Amino acid sequence: MPLEIPEVVIDRLPMYYRLISRIADQGRKVISSQELGDELDVTPAQIRKDLSYFGRFGKQGRGYSVQRLYDELRLILGLDRRWTVVVVGIGRLGRAVASYPGFEGQGFDIVARYDSDPNVIGTEVDGELVRDVAHLEQDLKISPVDIGIVTVPARYAQEVVDVLTRGGVQAILNYTPTRVQHPEAIELKNINPVLFLQSMTYHLSRSAKEQTE
Amino acid sequence: MPLEIPEVVIDRLPMYYRLISRIADQGRKVISSQELGDELDVTPAQIRKDLSYFGRFGKQGRGYSVQRLYDELRLILGLDRRWTVVVVGIGRLGRAVASYPGFEGQGFDIVARYDSDPNVIGTEVDGELVRDVAHLEQDLKISPVDIGIVTVPARYAQEVVDVLTRGGVQAILNYTPTRVQHPEAIELKNINPVLFLQSMTYHLSRSAKEQTE
Repeated sequence: MPLEIPEVVIDRLPMYYRLISRIADQGRKVISSQELGDELDVTPAQIRKDLSYFGRFGKQGRGYSVQRLYDELRLILGLDRRWTVVVVGIGRLGRAVASYPGFEGQGFDIVARYDSDPNVIGTEVDGELVRDVAHLEQDLKISPVDIGIVTVPARYAQEVVDVLTRGGVQAILNYTPTRVQHPEAIELKNINPVLFLQSMTYHLSRSAKEQTE
Repeated sequence: MPLEIPEVVIDRLPMYYRLISRIADQGRKVISSQELGDELDVTPAQIRKDLSYFGRFGKQGRGYSVQRLYDELRLILGLDRRWTVVVVGIGRLGRAVASYPGFEGQGFDIVARYDSDPNVIGTEVDGELVRDVAHLEQDLKISPVDIGIVTVPARYAQEVVDVLTRGGVQAILNYTPTRVQHPEAIELKNINPVLFLQSMTYHLSRSAKEQTE
């Protein structure tokens, strides 16, 4: 396996994985890059190029073996094992994220929930006690966790990321609008709805301009 | 401007825009593709290629004019005007999304909030009345809205997308884990935390394997 795979390619792999899971569920045995591309609005050439980073999955002109592609993507993405997750910030957003139905089936176990509000600490959310964020670092040192999800108010984002980092988490998903500093060895992704909207207004703006031309 | 710009490039433009806004705020006049790349973990060649789709912003060896890049990205992304947004589903997630602080400053005005729960309809959220989703289609026909954000429980996602589509919205941001059908002319993006986690576990899995080798 080559060492440097472009980040944009890695970001597309979960999409491929999700699609191929669905196709496997339908009982299909073989699928072409054309069909995969049609489903994902990606050119077949792009799909062949992306998948070629990880070895040879298909034979020229014969399509990909669905089962083999599924197994390999699962392995590549590290979904052949389970990952532990803590959610920090059990306000409205944190509650919604923690109860997202997709985690468990995909190998992600939410093992703890933290907040700083005395009215929330010690209450039950989704049948689990909310713990005091003041204990987060020590808890993580005793029971290491793989991933932290940050759903605190923006002004606390950096502080929580620092605690998670010192506590040894390896990856952080930041829901706050704050751009946080983090060590290079820690994976960090930001979820920002504004960025999603902006990539759509490009299209809206273009079609509006075409209509008035 | 060429007609077909790859979707992955468009998806990166909001990142460029955000970075260049910050650089402009710092009072910088010129910036190199190397510096932009360092900030975003993207190669300078990739940045030059991405921006070249939209015309010539910089001179070889001199870097980009920050103001010009800012103005052009703003125009390209359609951020030179304001966009109206409805949020459908005022549960925990919808409330968090609707109060996200980044919208207004970036040209997105949340003009209405809808729910189907009789206990929520008519109450105030962020100082605005929550309306009955049963009136959504008719309301949209009377007062058209550009963008819909879908934060309803998964089982209602398709129904809400259909209503938004019939009501004439042009773009939809789907927070539910459901993959919805929609007309090709409508822009639709899904926010799925599992996809974000999966693109990080690729890295975690690799570093774990390297450590045991």
